[in-house]
Amino acid sequence: MILLTLSYDGTAYSGWQRQNNAITVSELLETALEGIYHEPITVKGASRTDAGVHAYDQKASFSISANNGIKIPLAKLPEVLNAKLPSDIVIISAQEVPEGFNPRFSAISKTYEYNILNAPLNDPFLKRLAWHIPQTLDIDAMNKACELFIGTHDFAAFCASGGSQLTTERTINSAFLKQTPFRTQNLLTFTVNGNAFLYNMVRIMTGTLVYVGLGKLLPDDVTRALETGNRRLAGKTAPPQGLALVSVNLRGINYV
Amino acid sequence: MILLTLSYDGTAYSGWQRQNNAITVSELLETALEGIYHEPITVKGASRTDAGVHAYDQKASFSISANNGIKIPLAKLPEVLNAKLPSDIVIISAQEVPEGFNPRFSAISKTYEYNILNAPLNDPFLKRLAWHIPQTLDIDAMNKACELFIGTHDFAAFCASGGSQLTTERTINSAFLKQTPFRTQNLLTFTVNGNAFLYNMVRIMTGTLVYVGLGKLLPDDVTRALETGNRRLAGKTAPPQGLALVSVNLRGINYV
Repeated sequence: MILLTLSYDGTAYSGWQRQNNAITVSELLETALEGIYHEPITVKGASRTDAGVHAYDQKASFSISANNGIKIPLAKLPEVLNAKLPSDIVIISAQEVPEGFNPRFSAISKTYEYNILNAPLNDPFLKRLAWHIPQTLDIDAMNKACELFIGTHDFAAFCASGGSQLTTERTINSAFLKQTPFRTQNLLTFTVNGNAFLYNMVRIMTGTLVYVGLGKLLPDDVTRALETGNRRLAGKTAPPQGLALVSVNLRGINYV
Repeated sequence: MILLTLSYDGTAYSGWQRQNNAITVSELLETALEGIYHEPITVKGASRTDAGVHAYDQKASFSISANNGIKIPLAKLPEVLNAKLPSDIVIISAQEVPEGFNPRFSAISKTYEYNILNAPLNDPFLKRLAWHIPQTLDIDAMNKACELFIGTHDFAAFCASGGSQLTTERTINSAFLKQTPFRTQNLLTFTVNGNAFLYNMVRIMTGTLVYVGLGKLLPDDVTRALETGNRRLAGKTAPPQGLALVSVNLRGINYV
């Protein structure tokens, strides 16, 4: 079984997971692999990123049948695949993993980043990569709210309907905001690491932080949302373009 | 007369200057202004950026007839214009300048940046903003070549045909390379400030630097190209997406 590390700009795609009537990253990857190995191939991704969401370091595994005669050296596979993929999807590396390996179930934790451009005007170079908030944000209040996410909580209030999880309890290991200069402006980045994430969870966490920053919610409201599991007590779902899967921490795998 | 400061991602446009059968930034700006002032408007830009070239800080002037009754406060004009422009063009500010002001002829100097991603693999987030060079580059040799550009020289060898200039002599005030981390990779940025630039001059300078970095040219070849004015002694024209107009230094104007 082979594990791929890949990076993509999700702007043009209807997310990771294969769908009818929509172009997705996993479908393009499967098509590229099938063009190489000439057999049906299914890839399993670590994160089912939504439409318009990016990935710097997605992990995806696939296997080919034992009697497939086509042998591509692992070191060559990224190059061969990249030649078949559009330029907004880049295969970074390929490595051997045990048969049956599924990066989703082997993920100990994942890190996501959400970028907010907090400036009077939007920036033409960030419109695909950040959520533009022109109003002043109370960063202190947002930092306080951020800390409330850390730990093991029922994140039912931070979950869009449509998920298929058995439990809405998740553990957030770290959650913090950082401001970095971007040309003449500041980019506000929310970085969150957790054991697993519910459907739209990071985008709802971010929307809640922004509502706290705007004074529409208080940090205490985050506590109430966590305690009650009431989706209406959390903020709105932040738009997809600000979100990126930054890294996946896999059990028992030494990275290439 | 009004001077606008604007920023644009040039990916979707056939450059700054109005053309038949192609969408350009100045044309969209003129159409937006005409939609506000209801009279024909011509804008004059500081730099006629090529197709696919970006601008962080372009300057453009226009005037409306004295008897035009439509008055928009200057502080409001960017917002009104931005609502009429696509999101990859952003008007940053507007200020009053003397009648007849042309930012191109009032420019004391301009600064351009050219971004090179020197890494084995391209990056999906930089494909619109950088030239991908997978081979190893000799940065020391490139730095040496860079310094040779500084000063007043005949840049005939660094000029594409099609320009309409009277002389090919130009003064380069500064030219240097800088490496900045971009995620796991390094972005190599060539920054050049000069009194004026010939057609494709920065892109040919960059192509020459890359040829020096690849060992296809020696730093001494830059001296020969400058001395002889022979275009064939310089490197190839670098692709447009790596280039951005960074700033325009205007005579007698206090910036907003």
